[in-house]
Amino acid sequence: MLNASDLLERVRMQKPLVHHLTNWVTIYDCANIVKAFGASPVMAHAKEEVADMASLASALVLNIGTLTSDLVEAMALAAHAANCKGIPVTLDVCGAGATKFRDDKCFEILEKVKVDIIKGNASEIARIAGEKVQTRGVDAMAVEEDLRDLAQELAKERSCTVVITGKEDIVADGERVILVKNGHPMMANIVGTGCMATSVIGAFSAVENDYVAAAASGLVCYEVAAEIAAKVARGPGSLKVEMFDAVYSLDAKAVEKMQRIEA
Amino acid sequence: MLNASDLLERVRMQKPLVHHLTNWVTIYDCANIVKAFGASPVMAHAKEEVADMASLASALVLNIGTLTSDLVEAMALAAHAANCKGIPVTLDVCGAGATKFRDDKCFEILEKVKVDIIKGNASEIARIAGEKVQTRGVDAMAVEEDLRDLAQELAKERSCTVVITGKEDIVADGERVILVKNGHPMMANIVGTGCMATSVIGAFSAVENDYVAAAASGLVCYEVAAEIAAKVARGPGSLKVEMFDAVYSLDAKAVEKMQRIEA
Amino acid sequence: MLNASDLLERVRMQKPLVHHLTNWVTIYDCANIVKAFGASPVMAHAKEEVADMASLASALVLNIGTLTSDLVEAMALAAHAANCKGIPVTLDVCGAGATKFRDDKCFEILEKVKVDIIKGNASEIARIAGEKVQTRGVDAMAVEEDLRDLAQELAKERSCTVVITGKEDIVADGERVILVKNGHPMMANIVGTGCMATSVIGAFSAVENDYVAAAASGLVCYEVAAEIAAKVARGPGSLKVEMFDAVYSLDAKAVEKMQRIEA
Repeated sequence: MLNASDLLERVRMQKPLVHHLTNWVTIYDCANIVKAFGASPVMAHAKEEVADMASLASALVLNIGTLTSDLVEAMALAAHAANCKGIPVTLDVCGAGATKFRDDKCFEILEKVKVDIIKGNASEIARIAGEKVQTRGVDAMAVEEDLRDLAQELAKERSCTVVITGKEDIVADGERVILVKNGHPMMANIVGTGCMATSVIGAFSAVENDYVAAAASGLVCYEVAAEIAAKVARGPGSLKVEMFDAVYSLDAKAVEKMQRIEA
Repeated sequence: MLNASDLLERVRMQKPLVHHLTNWVTIYDCANIVKAFGASPVMAHAKEEVADMASLASALVLNIGTLTSDLVEAMALAAHAANCKGIPVTLDVCGAGATKFRDDKCFEILEKVKVDIIKGNASEIARIAGEKVQTRGVDAMAVEEDLRDLAQELAKERSCTVVITGKEDIVADGERVILVKNGHPMMANIVGTGCMATSVIGAFSAVENDYVAAAASGLVCYEVAAEIAAKVARGPGSLKVEMFDAVYSLDAKAVEKMQRIEA
Repeated sequence: MLNASDLLERVRMQKPLVHHLTNWVTIYDCANIVKAFGASPVMAHAKEEVADMASLASALVLNIGTLTSDLVEAMALAAHAANCKGIPVTLDVCGAGATKFRDDKCFEILEKVKVDIIKGNASEIARIAGEKVQTRGVDAMAVEEDLRDLAQELAKERSCTVVITGKEDIVADGERVILVKNGHPMMANIVGTGCMATSVIGAFSAVENDYVAAAASGLVCYEVAAEIAAKVARGPGSLKVEMFDAVYSLDAKAVEKMQRIEA
């Protein structure tokens, strides 16, 4: 049985350093959500220092949202250092399927280094799994696949954990599948919810070697907080503010009571 | 008669993808405001993918606020693809007049590609129109020109729509001039209001080929929302939050009732 | 006797242009806090224009939070122009001690140009002062040194003003030391408080040549506002919002009444 509240406590106690190479749109949100969870975000992307920084960290988060060739080179250097140190690497394949460049760079990262957790929405993951889908920017289009199977196949192919976010999130490692059914529809109306989810997964992966449990627990905690926030939010502006407050004040008992998972 | 509320509904129904190459200060605001209006923002600036991304989009927004030579090259590539596809290109000449580099790069963009909407404050537009004004950072200094004439002249010279934002916004295409008198003085106290206005204009240009109507409608809706937000805001922090909420909840009837335009 | 409220009024009256080359995480916060204080932020980092932009400004703020070699080159160009014009240069040695690259680049800046105010937390300043400490990302580890002595030594060595932020902030110039005891523990739970403090110091340095007084006054005003904000904040999300509101509405009398300094 998943014990999300336990992992929440671990994040708060251990305050892991989570190294990010992320996008320029939501870099601020990513840092803030990791900090609100009690962990310690650090953003660094210079090729000369990414390996050193990753070596100080307890987890690495890569997000290709506003990638360039240079940034992807730095990501590979950071991930290589993370692999050497044995800390988990989470990759958000943000916008995969939108352009050939994104797809190519995702595959380049996946070939060069070991990624422990691949995360995206349905169409992004479908593309990374080799499907011929077209992502419309960063917004997901429905794909016809059975998403659980898709996640399992990619997880097997890449020997990693795969997270597909959506109304229900799927976390799979080729054997187990966990569905996370928390969250709120208003999350779709603000920028950064997907990127923040990835950063949260990264923070939780720093304190638990079972990455299926880590990813699912992170999503549960984050989405329970979003549900609490949505109760008082009046729109996307206040929802974001309330989410940071709710994460910070998140009560372990609230998580246990509100979590909706299916293993 | 301008029907801003109609265009608001179109943006919400069509959810156009608005591709941005914008600045690193307000990139987050730009994405959020476009999303709050119900459209779909995508930010991408790698030279290898900007043409592909622009080809997926329904409008392109360029903002030179934190330009580099590299970024301007990517802007030209994106705009060329936008021109080929026939989608509107909006350029925020943010900070024009502050340095020779900014002026040169604006002119470079305007020479290389077709820009459909040029947007700036009075001093920025004056500089782009060839006046010898000095912009003080991104804050406008008063210029002596008759601003309507300035807008009309630049619009004729560049065969485009020109938007001068200020206490009253001027939207001109060389023939018609529309004044938008909505907005709130508190908007001048927060960073990003000008950049967000440009992104909103971009989103509205995606759903209406008459760019004067599109730009003016976008400004009306955005500024009516700001007025609603200002009623409850207690300072620049809460104003920004309330603006996103107000845009998201913006009622077509409120727009019709509150819009103050002069054609 | 430090008259922080006087300097606050000067910032509001003179509205100095504060040129930043800062990091991509908190660039938005830095711009907003400067604006909330009534000053005028401008962010520009292209090598082709940084000297021109710095020449227009009344103060320059450098922050190496997400440095690259290119950005540091641009910082040196901007700082050289600032030195020539005689405007103050403030350097946030954000993350110094975390990687050799950061340390090297800090020293490179300090060798190449005149920095008037060096600002960091205890471990960052210790590293810049030559101590063998290891910074854990951007979070400070306790260092054993007597921090006042550390600040004084570095100030003498570099002929500048040194600011060490922490529970109590230390401002020293080799002769005088001022302690600023304002602030709120909740500030440690949000991203950007340190970077914003640097930007505020930069804005205050633009209106007062005594940089010890300028830095201490900026910190007092900023932290008094944070105390006011913390009274109504419910977490890190609302604290940030309330801080911008509190800065904007900050009353000179509240500053005089609430300031806790020790000279």
